[in-house]
Amino acid sequence: MSELASLFNPQSVAIIGASATPGKIGNAILQNMIDSGYKGELYPINPKEEEILGYTCYPSVAEIPGEVEMAVLAVPARFVLPVAKECGEKGVKHLIGITAGFRETGKEGAQKEQELLEVCNEYGMRLVGPNCLGIADTHTPMDATFMADFPLKGRIAFISQSGALCASILDWSLDRGIGFSKFISLGNKADLNEADFILDAAADPNSSVIFCYIEDVADGDRFMQVCSEVSRSKPVVVLKSGTSSAGAQAASSHTGALAGSDRAYDTAFRQSGILRAYSMEEFFNYAAAFSYLPIPKGDRVAIVTNSGGPGIICTDSIEANGLTVARFSRETTEALRENLPPEANIYDPVDLIGDADKGRYLFALDRVLADDNVDAVVVMYTPVAVLSPEEVADAVITMRDKYPEKPVAVVLLGGAAVHDAADILEEAEIPCYFTPEPAVRSIAGLVRYSNMMDKAESPVVMDFSDVDRDKVREVFDSVKADNRVVLLGNEASAVAEAYGIPVAPIRLATSREDAANSADELGYPVVMKVASPYIVHKTDIGGVRLNLSSREEVEESFVEIMENVHRYLPDTPVNGVEVQKMMPPGTEIIIGMSQDVQFGPMLMFGLGGIYVNLLQDVAFRLVNGLTVAEVDNMIQETKAFNLLKGYRGDRPKDIKVVKETIARVAQLVWDFREITEMDINPLFAYDEGKGMAALDVKITLS
Amino acid sequence: MSELASLFNPQSVAIIGASATPGKIGNAILQNMIDSGYKGELYPINPKEEEILGYTCYPSVAEIPGEVEMAVLAVPARFVLPVAKECGEKGVKHLIGITAGFRETGKEGAQKEQELLEVCNEYGMRLVGPNCLGIADTHTPMDATFMADFPLKGRIAFISQSGALCASILDWSLDRGIGFSKFISLGNKADLNEADFILDAAADPNSSVIFCYIEDVADGDRFMQVCSEVSRSKPVVVLKSGTSSAGAQAASSHTGALAGSDRAYDTAFRQSGILRAYSMEEFFNYAAAFSYLPIPKGDRVAIVTNSGGPGIICTDSIEANGLTVARFSRETTEALRENLPPEANIYDPVDLIGDADKGRYLFALDRVLADDNVDAVVVMYTPVAVLSPEEVADAVITMRDKYPEKPVAVVLLGGAAVHDAADILEEAEIPCYFTPEPAVRSIAGLVRYSNMMDKAESPVVMDFSDVDRDKVREVFDSVKADNRVVLLGNEASAVAEAYGIPVAPIRLATSREDAANSADELGYPVVMKVASPYIVHKTDIGGVRLNLSSREEVEESFVEIMENVHRYLPDTPVNGVEVQKMMPPGTEIIIGMSQDVQFGPMLMFGLGGIYVNLLQDVAFRLVNGLTVAEVDNMIQETKAFNLLKGYRGDRPKDIKVVKETIARVAQLVWDFREITEMDINPLFAYDEGKGMAALDVKITLS
Repeated sequence: MSELASLFNPQSVAIIGASATPGKIGNAILQNMIDSGYKGELYPINPKEEEILGYTCYPSVAEIPGEVEMAVLAVPARFVLPVAKECGEKGVKHLIGITAGFRETGKEGAQKEQELLEVCNEYGMRLVGPNCLGIADTHTPMDATFMADFPLKGRIAFISQSGALCASILDWSLDRGIGFSKFISLGNKADLNEADFILDAAADPNSSVIFCYIEDVADGDRFMQVCSEVSRSKPVVVLKSGTSSAGAQAASSHTGALAGSDRAYDTAFRQSGILRAYSMEEFFNYAAAFSYLPIPKGDRVAIVTNSGGPGIICTDSIEANGLTVARFSRETTEALRENLPPEANIYDPVDLIGDADKGRYLFALDRVLADDNVDAVVVMYTPVAVLSPEEVADAVITMRDKYPEKPVAVVLLGGAAVHDAADILEEAEIPCYFTPEPAVRSIAGLVRYSNMMDKAESPVVMDFSDVDRDKVREVFDSVKADNRVVLLGNEASAVAEAYGIPVAPIRLATSREDAANSADELGYPVVMKVASPYIVHKTDIGGVRLNLSSREEVEESFVEIMENVHRYLPDTPVNGVEVQKMMPPGTEIIIGMSQDVQFGPMLMFGLGGIYVNLLQDVAFRLVNGLTVAEVDNMIQETKAFNLLKGYRGDRPKDIKVVKETIARVAQLVWDFREITEMDINPLFAYDEGKGMAALDVKITLS
Repeated sequence: MSELASLFNPQSVAIIGASATPGKIGNAILQNMIDSGYKGELYPINPKEEEILGYTCYPSVAEIPGEVEMAVLAVPARFVLPVAKECGEKGVKHLIGITAGFRETGKEGAQKEQELLEVCNEYGMRLVGPNCLGIADTHTPMDATFMADFPLKGRIAFISQSGALCASILDWSLDRGIGFSKFISLGNKADLNEADFILDAAADPNSSVIFCYIEDVADGDRFMQVCSEVSRSKPVVVLKSGTSSAGAQAASSHTGALAGSDRAYDTAFRQSGILRAYSMEEFFNYAAAFSYLPIPKGDRVAIVTNSGGPGIICTDSIEANGLTVARFSRETTEALRENLPPEANIYDPVDLIGDADKGRYLFALDRVLADDNVDAVVVMYTPVAVLSPEEVADAVITMRDKYPEKPVAVVLLGGAAVHDAADILEEAEIPCYFTPEPAVRSIAGLVRYSNMMDKAESPVVMDFSDVDRDKVREVFDSVKADNRVVLLGNEASAVAEAYGIPVAPIRLATSREDAANSADELGYPVVMKVASPYIVHKTDIGGVRLNLSSREEVEESFVEIMENVHRYLPDTPVNGVEVQKMMPPGTEIIIGMSQDVQFGPMLMFGLGGIYVNLLQDVAFRLVNGLTVAEVDNMIQETKAFNLLKGYRGDRPKDIKVVKETIARVAQLVWDFREITEMDINPLFAYDEGKGMAALDVKITLS
């Protein structure tokens, strides 16, 4: 039982600010409560009235004779605080803050909202809103909103951060016959937010699917944790707006530049098993599909049509959406061949041709739905004189009832001629579309959910015990003591090494002799680079020397590099020269990390080298809850994976060490949240068993 | 005046196979002709009837007293040939072949169709179909089809290869109030095809936009030539199915593997100025947008809404579709600030907030539409109590009438509550949608067309006079004499050289001494590769030696290579060893060519090297009519362009020579259509002024 269960099924409700004047919000809410058929006690509160809409009116909550479980606040903003306190004193458990004029109006409003929250906390009351449309439950039933209509009874729990979207979805749903279990307007989310309601809907036996429109999340970690849990048992579909407005962050690292804020949301949704709708249309289409259809077992779709052209268009759409055109069993094909006219197409898409009657649809659907190689079916109908769309609808309903475990969607290609049939289908809870693409996209949504469900649980990656936290702390402390945020190459390498990330050995040399000694220690050949957090393009100023194979060359290079730097950048502080063992070339990859405001550290993996930004062959994962399976997926999403597998006869690379290195980077940035950006690029991957070597590690602290 | 004009406006029409029995096709066509209000002479032909539907019936065309301009053939297939001959004798100009049973049924039918075509040619008759629904013209008016309804009068010429799609589009259009000038069912396209009707519609003053559904084109060259011409004056929108079925060709070259058949169609559409609809939805949405809205001058879209959330969703969609969110002038912003409530958003998207009335919509639309920084407007409405959708529709109509030169689309977010307003808008020829994305996509279609119109005409690239055709002919002849289709490296290089394509100098050596002499001539260092059309992976069998810097090394290598080949592939014919001058490294690009069955040679350009298939950073253009501007676009579409421009401080590469080389390859493959595949990869591009060098040229002949 959800701790919020009583919010949707209170024994008694007070409407504070109830009004006798039609058109006022306080009137609409009371009227909606009455019209919904709410069976508990209803107490309108208004000091100026004795009775409203047939209910005894009380001057204040305090004066209500019995207990009050929930109170709806529809008073002006200035009265909200004292009224809330009164509710607390009365022992009210839940407040629905309809009233606007809080955080959304600026600083002063935010302050008022904070005070309201404190009152709620003091008395242990939970708060919806403020600045919301209210909440409704069709099973209780209860309508504590001022919406124009009450939703139809159904199985979708709908949670929305936009009141406008509540109104639109409601109006649309009445038209399409789509029902809801709950309707929740989040408002300002001062207390209860999307995560609370998703969790509640998960426990609600009347809700079988959860739809959510959000503009942001209140708490990234909790949102992910809740959704990861809930999505295992119920589909969670999210429409999030603001995909583009933020744009790419202004950041100095590759990872930061490629990771936008929407990317973090997208990654968070994916990692927590949420199905994201990328448009309002898709959201609407998913609503019908998820509330009516079973989840398919696979992605093999059969088409049954009475016309060829639209059948081909549907086939195109199936492939474009990553689904598979079903290949029927021999029995199915034989049965179709024997019973359909010779001009018919007996392979997928099954074309019953223009003179098909209801019997032909029934026969073909029966055969196709019975085939184990078919996971879902799209039935198409083009208006013809010999067969009415109503007959097709009838055939589909019969066969859906016979095979309830396989999703069936219908495409009626036409306008007025097919309206009635569409109504019949929706009445029978079969989603109906007027062009093939949305039907296919809806099935693709079900398949995406099915794939997510199939994923086995997999251990979280962060469990290396051989890491040296003290060493990292020591380096960071010294960098901070130096008033820097960017680590020098040797410092960053030391940090990486402390976490078992394979790096090419590196030393910081401050003199000619020091450099030569370091090179002797490391072994030749070596590479030398000027060490300065202020110099970005080291090659351009003559600050880099490659392939040095003797003590003499190293000494000369030290002098040259120092002279070049002093000539080009005379006033730039320089810490010395980094001497690094020159590594044999390997497959160049990048592992990076940037911080997202909402979801914390996010890893990037992909093709490395100088063309990272050009090619953008990268995949992202949030570190929060990162699993072994996600690391595998992350690597496999990139083209770099093809290189690692051994491209065109090349030997396979050490993917095991690549995975481990990603996991070690994850642990490092999780342990030290002060790391704001990290780039390891290039990171050479060698043949299987030979490991990796990071050539350049960049770390920036907050 | 189009040569087909009289097809859509004949003085007299014979319906051959007219029937008195309702439900028969020959009855439906006559009834449709009558119902359409056709004003010419109508002659039903049926030897068994004296009168049908009030018209005198004739036993045959020959016996009609007056002239007959057009005949509709609705007789069984076996009667079609003699009847067609009779029509020819009578002097009929146009035949509409409704009858099925021709090419679509197999070989015998195809033969019958060929005979029918020959009869038409003999008598100078033009033929629509056979196996079609017929044709209709709403302006004539005339309905020579057996469709269930007559289209509304309008400005869209609709041409369809699928009869089913005709029926669906017609039914949908009646529902949405969309009108057509002509409705053409192409059928088997034995004579007249899509190109003929596109050309006719271009000349038709009643058609302002041309919509076409095709599954293939009858003649690629003519289709491109016609559409390139027509699309300059009227939008041509095409929906083509079968995008996926063909799949990638089985081909040995990079270019062949990356170029699928749909890629050729896509490229042909783009190069001939056709706007492609990628789904049936998009096709429908474009139909409303192109028949109602003016073409915008730019891509800057303003949003006027009464709710924030949907406004953000619309903004996301604008950016996702490559359009620009408009930035208003200071005057507009000031006017909005002064006249809208303080909570309103005065920047794009303009949020009039929930209590907006009609006056606020009128004011904001007036200001926004007057702003020179706005090219198109999306008006959004979320149902609220204070403002009806009909009032919003009214405000939009008023302002559209005041600013008829800017496209305005409306999004009414809701279901039943907004139906009436949607009808009002469509009646007023303002497209109306129920979610933001299709509205934005429709405007994006108008903008895409506008951009295509803006493209200046640019000269065709194939005009090099310094090419040596005889040399190429000579090489090809010798390859053919050798019974080969794959050219050796030195042969392919000679061909390239003959067309001024820069190649690294190469010689074929057949002995140790020969190799050493070649290397002396070319200058050191050199590269050596086994020369055999049968060995693909030359490195794997030890058939390649790099960086050879002396006569001795070359001689040794010759022996080694030959020994390796004999050891690993003892029975493979070997032509010798290629000695090639080793070139300094440059930016690696690829230029390739594959042949498309329908559209001829198609070029590919992109990032070269061993990762061509992995990265797939390539652009395609058909050689047919290839212009200088298209070569520029082709290069700019790829990421390789960023490298050529000088990536991250690198010097710019010799783009002029890159362009010229593409043009020279185009001319080569155009002059020699027997080249079925060509790959130049890698092709090194050097710094500006330094040109290029092709390292490997592969040519396959038919």
